Amino acid sequence: MARVTTPPIDPLLRDRRSPSVFDPTHTLDDSQLASLLEAARWSPSWGNTQPWRFLVGRRGDASHARIVAALSRGNRQWAPAASAILIGLRQVGAEPDDPKGGLRTYDYTAYDLGQSAAHLSVQAVSMGLAVHQFGGFDHDAIAAGFAVPPQWEVLSGIAVGRWLPSAERTTDSPDVDQANVEREERPRKRRPLDQLAFAERFGEPLRVGHGE
Amino acid sequence: MARVTTPPIDPLLRDRRSPSVFDPTHTLDDSQLASLLEAARWSPSWGNTQPWRFLVGRRGDASHARIVAALSRGNRQWAPAASAILIGLRQVGAEPDDPKGGLRTYDYTAYDLGQSAAHLSVQAVSMGLAVHQFGGFDHDAIAAGFAVPPQWEVLSGIAVGRWLPSAERTTDSPDVDQANVEREERPRKRRPLDQLAFAERFGEPLRVGHGE
Repeated sequence: MARVTTPPIDPLLRDRRSPSVFDPTHTLDDSQLASLLEAARWSPSWGNTQPWRFLVGRRGDASHARIVAALSRGNRQWAPAASAILIGLRQVGAEPDDPKGGLRTYDYTAYDLGQSAAHLSVQAVSMGLAVHQFGGFDHDAIAAGFAVPPQWEVLSGIAVGRWLPSAERTTDSPDVDQANVEREERPRKRRPLDQLAFAERFGEPLRVGHGE
Repeated sequence: MARVTTPPIDPLLRDRRSPSVFDPTHTLDDSQLASLLEAARWSPSWGNTQPWRFLVGRRGDASHARIVAALSRGNRQWAPAASAILIGLRQVGAEPDDPKGGLRTYDYTAYDLGQSAAHLSVQAVSMGLAVHQFGGFDHDAIAAGFAVPPQWEVLSGIAVGRWLPSAERTTDSPDVDQANVEREERPRKRRPLDQLAFAERFGEPLRVGHGE
């Protein structure tokens, strides 16, 4: 999946992508899963509040089955083949036993969960794995099924596994849906830098010699 | 800043930290700034909506001066010495000219801005630089000063620069505030993994052989 970006960026970021075809035979062992979570754990957060938690299911276990049952129809096509699916939660209220009565603000808790998931994703790339995040699942069913307390909001789905390269796919494999193959092969697109970074005023392109 | 984590994680994540003492003589050239933003640009987002924008000030320019003027008293002690300060914005409403009438949901825009800032931070580490993010600044003053339209919310501050190692600091330097030195030298702490990742139900530690 190597590619070139101009300007250059680190290969871990450059080669990261969100695959839709995972290797349905790959499994994550304890030490791999621990490293992924350790990366999430050391992510920065507002005032070091660490307002993130993760529900974790590995293919074959009860948590995984419960997560798969809550997936949207589209995500049920590809996500179960990943080795694990995590659900990211963000804090939205005080813990009942918190003497401080909760955080001073919850404005940064989704932001910080996003950072934590990003660190997990970069760690996955460094281990030869890939992450595909998604929002399409029954959030209420997850909250009920895992007894998530009301001060935690179910936010994101995070599928982790080994990308299945085209050469290893068989056309009659039930795990390789053609729509997912096409989705993967679409060129990755992003808004150009000069529509993203501004100086002086919103909308005024920052000049760094790489406007497109 | 090398350290060890158990379980092991990639050095770019392991050695990342949020310094409070930046080298006040270091500057970011166009190509470095472009690479930082390129990393932010290739971050994933919900439905590839890319709901992030950045206002960018480099030390010495007008945008930087306007950002510095809006900093909280605490952040004014250390952030101006960084080579650049970026302000992260997230989308909260439809663009006036959007034929689709905006995003289907804004629930993921803070999360995705956080991911984008995290990718920028990892890129900074890979370039020998460091990022310290913060929330303490006058968000309304930034929105007014940069004419940020109402469909974009001013959310985070992102200082980028070169960490100034202790050996290079002089005790009489006006740029090295003792409180910031102490803040930096505090050991980094995080909630243990078994209070962070759950299986079966919220609060039930995931067993991956690394509970602390």
